[in-house]
Amino acid sequence: MSTFGNHFRVHTYGESHCLSVGVVVDGCPPCLQLTEADIQPQLTRRRPGQSAISTPRDEKDRVEIQSGIENGITLGSPIAMRVMNENQRPKDYGNKTMDKFPRPSHADWTYQEKYGIRASSGGGRSSARETIGRVAAGAIAEKVLRDIAGVEIVAFVSSIGNEFLFPPTATHPSPSTNPEFLKMLETIDRKTVDSFVPVRCPNQEAADRMEKLIADFRDKQDSIGGTVTCVIRNVPVGLGEPCFDKLEATLAHAMLSIPATKGFEIGSGFGGCRIPGSIHNDPFIKAPAIPPSQSGLQSGIPRPRLTTKTNNSGGIQGGISNGAHIYFTVAFKPPATIGQAQHTTTYDEEEGVLEAKGRHDPSVVPRAIPIVEAMAAITLMDAFLAQQARASTRDLIQAAQANSKKLDGLSLNGS
Amino acid sequence: MSTFGNHFRVHTYGESHCLSVGVVVDGCPPCLQLTEADIQPQLTRRRPGQSAISTPRDEKDRVEIQSGIENGITLGSPIAMRVMNENQRPKDYGNKTMDKFPRPSHADWTYQEKYGIRASSGGGRSSARETIGRVAAGAIAEKVLRDIAGVEIVAFVSSIGNEFLFPPTATHPSPSTNPEFLKMLETIDRKTVDSFVPVRCPNQEAADRMEKLIADFRDKQDSIGGTVTCVIRNVPVGLGEPCFDKLEATLAHAMLSIPATKGFEIGSGFGGCRIPGSIHNDPFIKAPAIPPSQSGLQSGIPRPRLTTKTNNSGGIQGGISNGAHIYFTVAFKPPATIGQAQHTTTYDEEEGVLEAKGRHDPSVVPRAIPIVEAMAAITLMDAFLAQQARASTRDLIQAAQANSKKLDGLSLNGS
Amino acid sequence: MSTFGNHFRVHTYGESHCLSVGVVVDGCPPCLQLTEADIQPQLTRRRPGQSAISTPRDEKDRVEIQSGIENGITLGSPIAMRVMNENQRPKDYGNKTMDKFPRPSHADWTYQEKYGIRASSGGGRSSARETIGRVAAGAIAEKVLRDIAGVEIVAFVSSIGNEFLFPPTATHPSPSTNPEFLKMLETIDRKTVDSFVPVRCPNQEAADRMEKLIADFRDKQDSIGGTVTCVIRNVPVGLGEPCFDKLEATLAHAMLSIPATKGFEIGSGFGGCRIPGSIHNDPFIKAPAIPPSQSGLQSGIPRPRLTTKTNNSGGIQGGISNGAHIYFTVAFKPPATIGQAQHTTTYDEEEGVLEAKGRHDPSVVPRAIPIVEAMAAITLMDAFLAQQARASTRDLIQAAQANSKKLDGLSLNGS
Amino acid sequence: MSTFGNHFRVHTYGESHCLSVGVVVDGCPPCLQLTEADIQPQLTRRRPGQSAISTPRDEKDRVEIQSGIENGITLGSPIAMRVMNENQRPKDYGNKTMDKFPRPSHADWTYQEKYGIRASSGGGRSSARETIGRVAAGAIAEKVLRDIAGVEIVAFVSSIGNEFLFPPTATHPSPSTNPEFLKMLETIDRKTVDSFVPVRCPNQEAADRMEKLIADFRDKQDSIGGTVTCVIRNVPVGLGEPCFDKLEATLAHAMLSIPATKGFEIGSGFGGCRIPGSIHNDPFIKAPAIPPSQSGLQSGIPRPRLTTKTNNSGGIQGGISNGAHIYFTVAFKPPATIGQAQHTTTYDEEEGVLEAKGRHDPSVVPRAIPIVEAMAAITLMDAFLAQQARASTRDLIQAAQANSKKLDGLSLNGS
Repeated sequence: MSTFGNHFRVHTYGESHCLSVGVVVDGCPPCLQLTEADIQPQLTRRRPGQSAISTPRDEKDRVEIQSGIENGITLGSPIAMRVMNENQRPKDYGNKTMDKFPRPSHADWTYQEKYGIRASSGGGRSSARETIGRVAAGAIAEKVLRDIAGVEIVAFVSSIGNEFLFPPTATHPSPSTNPEFLKMLETIDRKTVDSFVPVRCPNQEAADRMEKLIADFRDKQDSIGGTVTCVIRNVPVGLGEPCFDKLEATLAHAMLSIPATKGFEIGSGFGGCRIPGSIHNDPFIKAPAIPPSQSGLQSGIPRPRLTTKTNNSGGIQGGISNGAHIYFTVAFKPPATIGQAQHTTTYDEEEGVLEAKGRHDPSVVPRAIPIVEAMAAITLMDAFLAQQARASTRDLIQAAQANSKKLDGLSLNGS
Repeated sequence: MSTFGNHFRVHTYGESHCLSVGVVVDGCPPCLQLTEADIQPQLTRRRPGQSAISTPRDEKDRVEIQSGIENGITLGSPIAMRVMNENQRPKDYGNKTMDKFPRPSHADWTYQEKYGIRASSGGGRSSARETIGRVAAGAIAEKVLRDIAGVEIVAFVSSIGNEFLFPPTATHPSPSTNPEFLKMLETIDRKTVDSFVPVRCPNQEAADRMEKLIADFRDKQDSIGGTVTCVIRNVPVGLGEPCFDKLEATLAHAMLSIPATKGFEIGSGFGGCRIPGSIHNDPFIKAPAIPPSQSGLQSGIPRPRLTTKTNNSGGIQGGISNGAHIYFTVAFKPPATIGQAQHTTTYDEEEGVLEAKGRHDPSVVPRAIPIVEAMAAITLMDAFLAQQARASTRDLIQAAQANSKKLDGLSLNGS
Repeated sequence: MSTFGNHFRVHTYGESHCLSVGVVVDGCPPCLQLTEADIQPQLTRRRPGQSAISTPRDEKDRVEIQSGIENGITLGSPIAMRVMNENQRPKDYGNKTMDKFPRPSHADWTYQEKYGIRASSGGGRSSARETIGRVAAGAIAEKVLRDIAGVEIVAFVSSIGNEFLFPPTATHPSPSTNPEFLKMLETIDRKTVDSFVPVRCPNQEAADRMEKLIADFRDKQDSIGGTVTCVIRNVPVGLGEPCFDKLEATLAHAMLSIPATKGFEIGSGFGGCRIPGSIHNDPFIKAPAIPPSQSGLQSGIPRPRLTTKTNNSGGIQGGISNGAHIYFTVAFKPPATIGQAQHTTTYDEEEGVLEAKGRHDPSVVPRAIPIVEAMAAITLMDAFLAQQARASTRDLIQAAQANSKKLDGLSLNGS
Repeated sequence: MSTFGNHFRVHTYGESHCLSVGVVVDGCPPCLQLTEADIQPQLTRRRPGQSAISTPRDEKDRVEIQSGIENGITLGSPIAMRVMNENQRPKDYGNKTMDKFPRPSHADWTYQEKYGIRASSGGGRSSARETIGRVAAGAIAEKVLRDIAGVEIVAFVSSIGNEFLFPPTATHPSPSTNPEFLKMLETIDRKTVDSFVPVRCPNQEAADRMEKLIADFRDKQDSIGGTVTCVIRNVPVGLGEPCFDKLEATLAHAMLSIPATKGFEIGSGFGGCRIPGSIHNDPFIKAPAIPPSQSGLQSGIPRPRLTTKTNNSGGIQGGISNGAHIYFTVAFKPPATIGQAQHTTTYDEEEGVLEAKGRHDPSVVPRAIPIVEAMAAITLMDAFLAQQARASTRDLIQAAQANSKKLDGLSLNGS
């Protein structure tokens, strides 16, 4: 199924070469101020060939809202959005080579085997274009979370190939114990990330190293992978459903559903396996007073009284958010389309050489930033609604039980 | 919700201190030969304090089948299973310390915040005991997959702290390019894994290093994490649902839902970010002829005509299994319960020192083996049923369309 | 799947002849006072062979809570419950006749065709015993709804064969326009219903007619069907999800999932097709002031300002509860097991005569009362949680937007 | 949520006054021949103001396929379809009266109470226009079912007000025992139904009576309801999931989710409560040989060896299709919009008189025909895929077990 989420349900559609790609977003609460202007920026950030967050006159990948909103206010009904495909059958596809060879490490072969048919673009729904619907839906989820709890979601490139923003060291096998890293999580924002185009790694020295590495791979007609790290600030406490829908589990699901991903780690992650429990455990401390300016308070979502001194947990304990920053890292493989010739085999089991035409992107990691943010927002929004149902009903139960006790008391006194 | 899976749906229940823990397994196909004897071995493997796969006279954690099976044959109806809890309220819980302090990096605090109440055992459903239901359900899924396709699922410990079975190197940043690793994936079985007790790392030298490391941490009243690697052989081609339920995404979901996990990587994983695309791409080759002995053929599930020469993809491309071995690695953090005193804060925001009583396991990784295998089996079984629905209906469509064409032909000839 | 509900999810298991039947209830809010004593009464009401709500020393069909509750308070985790089966393989089953003949209008044949196997009891999950889990789950849902909103759910027998409590007339093709019927809906309670044993039709004259009719059919070794009408009072406004999960649609689903049901009608129902729109439309009136004693107010669930003068809608408009009483009627067919000989065919296509042994219940309608109530409660609880998630989040959005506007105002004034 | 179905999932969107209405259909099998021409006819049948199945040059409600199909063949990916709305904000809405009064028995009031906002058209998603997405999705489901199993779904008007096609009698309280009715179910087709425009009741005398009745109500500026009966022929055996998703339960859910419905009955239905069990039971008989021409056989779906002599069950026993014709009846209330003045109350609790402008349809029943057919097709398709997953996997299990036994035999012989 092409749906994600139970309460905030996202249903995407579309291949590379059909009429349009899009999404139906179901479960968005009513009475939210929302227009295309809230959605377009993230779509623009994910577009290929651009290098800054604002591309003023770019008419491409324009979202069209179909339903669910009147006069800039959500109705509570499904919000359908679509983005037109420009060339439904481009010339460089459909040539004999493409029809003969399943491209190595693409989805051509598995789609053909799964469905008994494949789209003319090869992998069909595995196309990067499918992520447009996710980004549009994510922008809505993010708007709700930001409005009501001041949630901030910021992703950035943390490595390309062997070039790291925070390389693992013997002292810090995971950046989770590195004060520099933790400091960056506090303040990093999208504007800063986008100022480091084209790499979107928010450190000039590291960004330069990464840019050079990508250029090297481009020159060799090769490709290289990397990692994206994402932080979520002002997360309401109590999100995540035991036991199968732990918050880290649904985040992992969301992230590994993005094309070209190979791994996910939350908090200390794989490096955390190498940290002694006595250091890895996050002791509790009294939470600092919240500055009155903080938006999370505006709507009345209470902040927890305790927080943790360290944050190797990555903001989640027992599958449930504890109010500290959530952060995680996602691994992206090198793009499968490379200029170099590849020895492989046709659909008909004949050996041969496949050469890709045109110029190819040697790394997709920087463009994945808004997709990672979108999936994080959708996952969090779904968990938020699940918890609201429970917590608001529990409050009603406790109020009723307290009232009932009071009435019993009155009745006893009165009798 | 405590359910996992849409077609093969697993619904677990139970805390540490209630009457029983258990599971309802819904969607198991009918006519399968199945008894407690198929389920007990994996439950026995996950028990604490044991060291070999067969513990002949052990009466603990005995599964009781409640429904869904008659005369050793599944009826197609829900299979409920339960395992009694032995001590519903042990003495070492419920003391004043436990009631005062949320344990660092446990789920006590987040459960209290989420629910407004917590189980007497603290984290409630985050207990390791909850995994009993998963292991029981996984044994059923595995039985189906093994019977009909010869699927083999084997997990083993691949690192403890800094001690690795296959340490990352400059040449092999991921073991996915290491011939030794790939060779082990071909043949490793559970019996071999269990012969390396207590560590379950199937290499004597590495197992010795790990065992010594664990002993060191035990002596220091500290704890340490590690990784589990799991291989799945004879996977039917075509499993995994675009676009949100890619097979690696549902595997990641399943694995990160296991208590104490911090990361997941499929195929080349995080190391794969460091491998050039020209090496990382898996070229296609003609699949070798299948030896007639291979069980996967018995039931008529066809094996694909092509396979890949290398397997950095980890058996999944575009979210869909390609028939090659699936393998992945899961990170487990150091256990949060340690003997050392910890400076932390009470529920009432008072600073203090928490000391855990008794002897604690310095590493849970070896015991996680059957849980990882169980969740892999459940995930695969669910994907298998989804694909069967589609593929078998597609076959009917194609047969009907072919027949219709034939009838048209006859009619034309006849007229 | 044997699950019902998305937010309050009920998962039943068990056949007639297995070890136990039971249910896992997922999504029950935490902090609810709940013990077996809240669940047993409805289980006792559904038992065969009993005739009053309270059967003091009856040890049969005793519910055992497995999990999810500590010290009489729900934890928010799954509540598993089971009821032992007494005789797993009674003597009167499994005889040659049963094995030879699929019983007419039972589920023997369809189960065999669907699964390729059938339980020794014939229809497996179609057994009336399966409803035990529903009734147990319904008792929990009902407890929540009653505590927080004063919801009252009362079902009664409204017809047996041609004997009606409110026979359709030319003036009142549906009882929805009959003042006598509407008056009964206001006050009828379970105690009154149960005082009319064995028929549970709350009108002496009608009950006598029905009892006599049932006796006639018993004497003829025949059987007869009937209808159950159910009213739900103090329903919170706003329940039901457009467009597929309209409240009447999920109620219909719930009711038609009860064994032996053949029809469902909400409000005016089938008779409503015969009432002119000018009469059928329910005009709005100002809602009467709520007496301070009314429990629905205790927890703070607001009552709507408007209500309807008439109630042909049955408390639901556009699929959403409007706060008026919900009422509906369910049709039950005559029991398929009759003493008379039946000419039919064996599994092997041979004609023959099937004779049922023993004494059989000529009408199941009175026993269906608690099952109808249970399914109504489960359906409503699920809709309630869905609406709570939305409405409580909308409130947060509106608070945040209002606050934001206020801050803007302050900022303008200050500049 | 606006989704229906688990395996064949339909997700509709759109209000009356937004840009478009539409649907995403997920789970359609690949390799199906499908174009707009398969979908448009049913959309055209549901349009207002038309009277025959084929309206050659009508450009309204034109479906645009967005995705999921290439070269007239389904890819197995989501099929998105949309239909433009013509006038997003017509003049006759938004007037002061509409803004002041919630219309009696419309959804204006409940939407406002549920969401805290309402669409300018009043009831938002309760609009008849929402059904466009259903009809489009149903056309796809129907194409699959017809191609692979020869399934035929035909609905017709069975009553308007007190005018019945088969009035209930003492002998036949339900038409299920009436040979005339059963004979009609055998052969009725859509062409015949549409030949009885505008009433779509396939009997000239009854159609005339109904037409006259509707004209009477039109003259009185009043409205009247009616019933639609639907038959499904060539249903594969074994569809429907115990215990909550019995086929009659999901059909009831589907039908009661159609706007303006008040009741559902399967087979003998409410009348069946009045038929003795000895007559109501459907004895088994050997199924007649299937003529070689029958399309259901083309694809290899086996027909059951037994059928029933009578069919009071309506083709479903124990919640599972038995291969006999499924038939059911749906009740539609009189349209709420009438020309007569109505005394009611404003949103602000002021009494007043509401008068609807313009000419209104005194009965929606004839137009509901294709909607009923669509929801029936979607429900059946979903059940079909669920059963295919199970049955095809069971076949693999049985093949493997048989093979294993054979191999054991060989091995025994050989040793």
